[in-house]
Amino acid sequence: MLDRDRCLALDADDPLREFRAEFVLPEGVIYLVGNSLGALPRHTPERVRRAVEDEWGGRLVGGWNDAGWYDLPLTLGDRIAPLIGAGPGQVVVGNTTSIAVHQAVSAAVRLRPERRVIVSDTRNFPTDHYMIQGLAQALGGYEIRDFAEGRFDDAAVVLLSEVDYRTSERHDVPAVTARVREAGALMAWDVCHSVGALDVDVSAADFAVGCTYKYLNAGPGAPAFLYVNPRHHADAVNVLSGWHGHAEPFAFEEGYRPAEGIRRFAVSTPHVLSMASLDAALDIWERVPLDLLRAKSMALGSLFVDLVGDALELASPADAERRGSHVSFHHPDGFPVVRALIDRGVQGDFRAPDILRFGIAPLYTRYVDVWDAAHTLVEVLDKELWKDERYARRPAVT
Amino acid sequence: MLDRDRCLALDADDPLREFRAEFVLPEGVIYLVGNSLGALPRHTPERVRRAVEDEWGGRLVGGWNDAGWYDLPLTLGDRIAPLIGAGPGQVVVGNTTSIAVHQAVSAAVRLRPERRVIVSDTRNFPTDHYMIQGLAQALGGYEIRDFAEGRFDDAAVVLLSEVDYRTSERHDVPAVTARVREAGALMAWDVCHSVGALDVDVSAADFAVGCTYKYLNAGPGAPAFLYVNPRHHADAVNVLSGWHGHAEPFAFEEGYRPAEGIRRFAVSTPHVLSMASLDAALDIWERVPLDLLRAKSMALGSLFVDLVGDALELASPADAERRGSHVSFHHPDGFPVVRALIDRGVQGDFRAPDILRFGIAPLYTRYVDVWDAAHTLVEVLDKELWKDERYARRPAVT
Repeated sequence: MLDRDRCLALDADDPLREFRAEFVLPEGVIYLVGNSLGALPRHTPERVRRAVEDEWGGRLVGGWNDAGWYDLPLTLGDRIAPLIGAGPGQVVVGNTTSIAVHQAVSAAVRLRPERRVIVSDTRNFPTDHYMIQGLAQALGGYEIRDFAEGRFDDAAVVLLSEVDYRTSERHDVPAVTARVREAGALMAWDVCHSVGALDVDVSAADFAVGCTYKYLNAGPGAPAFLYVNPRHHADAVNVLSGWHGHAEPFAFEEGYRPAEGIRRFAVSTPHVLSMASLDAALDIWERVPLDLLRAKSMALGSLFVDLVGDALELASPADAERRGSHVSFHHPDGFPVVRALIDRGVQGDFRAPDILRFGIAPLYTRYVDVWDAAHTLVEVLDKELWKDERYARRPAVT
Repeated sequence: MLDRDRCLALDADDPLREFRAEFVLPEGVIYLVGNSLGALPRHTPERVRRAVEDEWGGRLVGGWNDAGWYDLPLTLGDRIAPLIGAGPGQVVVGNTTSIAVHQAVSAAVRLRPERRVIVSDTRNFPTDHYMIQGLAQALGGYEIRDFAEGRFDDAAVVLLSEVDYRTSERHDVPAVTARVREAGALMAWDVCHSVGALDVDVSAADFAVGCTYKYLNAGPGAPAFLYVNPRHHADAVNVLSGWHGHAEPFAFEEGYRPAEGIRRFAVSTPHVLSMASLDAALDIWERVPLDLLRAKSMALGSLFVDLVGDALELASPADAERRGSHVSFHHPDGFPVVRALIDRGVQGDFRAPDILRFGIAPLYTRYVDVWDAAHTLVEVLDKELWKDERYARRPAVT
């Protein structure tokens, strides 16, 4: 096993090492929650200031043309596309992942009107289930089936998360997509917990949704994105048929006529200030080789697993190929353990009922961070430091 | 009729005169498009900077608790409530007006399951129609009826804009609400073109939606809001049943259980940076007496109408009581007329097919601005200055 000096040497040799300097990272804290909210890129404040003062303050309503606001959902979509294996004109940015799930699944069931089953997965993030439940209840007559049942021949659509938000287990996207589509169902992937850390490729799927505030570092509540395979651009229906998806929004016609291409999945006025922050974040992603990103993520994750060893029960796959970019462990008192770690400068998070998560953001997490975090974790457990009563109190958002 | 000096005197006596200094307004331009995108409040850049650098950069994921991000949809909703006649716990902020329309209308039809008619109005902004069309098509079996038919006894819900986005005609909200509800239908108001300029009161209605980037000055693409009358809080269903509307979002249960109260209409992760800008804008609104706002809006609108006189055909009601806060005229070549005005420092806008709009934002529009704008307009028409070919070119967003 490595020692700490060897970790420092690996950091010095890391081909991605220079990206870390582009982020604002807190002093004295090892931030392993980039899988929940990514760090602030150093140049983002200036880009947001420009949107507020120069574009809005300086151009006022003229910003819709002069500052490119109107096209942001498409221009930002084109910048995200390479991160998920998609091409230009296939991704639209806006709204939230939950709303994108509603758009994707409602469009899918309309494309398979004779099928009345929607397949979901208990490993999906709960909001994906909730959105499907709301949609199925509104439409009436739909069965929601668990993915584990493995039957898709009467399913309209299968919605899965590429990476499990708790255990980090990664689906085999090409194999599952092929299996689902061979059964005549449509495939929708949620890549919230993979985009920006893995070599994501959803190009064979029918739909994909994802968020930009985790590994992509676009800021709290940054807009989501929706990928629609071009084979559906002519026929897929956007149930949220707002004016920005209209063929001629500024003709102010009474009837909805969908735009050509991916624009029909735009809904309405884009959140320009939140999008400015995403625009800044994507400047960095243009320079990131995804193969190196994935390789570093796997190496750091495996180092964490090795260093923790038997001190905790691993909740993630031991095989890095089958894992996303966070590493999870079971502990019956996971919450106070996480609090004790935070108190010692190691920030991970807790997911009910018993999951400790440590997110590895390969752009700014170092080998030495993993070394120090794992050793602090083992010490907190060995010495039972988490049994201090001040670690028991729960905030509103955990 | 007044002269220019009298306008200057009226500005000096205006009880709202000090608000103008709180906004960044362009030099040499009379900005009469505050009904489309409100001006930048001077303190907003610092509030947004704080959200980016201090909250996100400084607290990272801790901002969800420490900076109050998680509750923003409700805390901002409570700050908007007094502007629409609502009380605390009745308004939720987030998403866009189009999405709020989908939430309100889909909830309403579920509350009146035996009725299969949705009433809309050609005076609604088109996206309201489009969203209803998308919803009706998805649900199947619904008739969309025009408000002008005047029959509501078999209608589930009536959706109207308080103020017509083209003509500025204002509905009699209490009378229409009473008539619709007496017929057993639910009433939903779109107050996009009235909130922040009129004495809006939707408290008797069932639902209301509105945007914050027009008269409220919250910035390009700032989030929308949704009012739900408390009589429906226990029974209304949010079809966009995302995790932030769940009773216990951080329990990560598999089944959706709606939260109590207005929170069940939250959907998912709020757009924090766009909301920071709204938060700043609302600081101003706490100090604005709505009766004075409405009185000034009416006085300025009537002055504009009087000064233009017979030079153009009025598209708005001549009676200020029946008008919103913009004034509109017909002109068969409206687009080049607007371009010629912009070239002379008067910014209005054009809405197809033939409407010239001039928005009066009572917090920063002055009597002398109206005087100068109207005189420039009359000159452009009298001297046919709009017939220059460079005014014919149309940008993407008009």
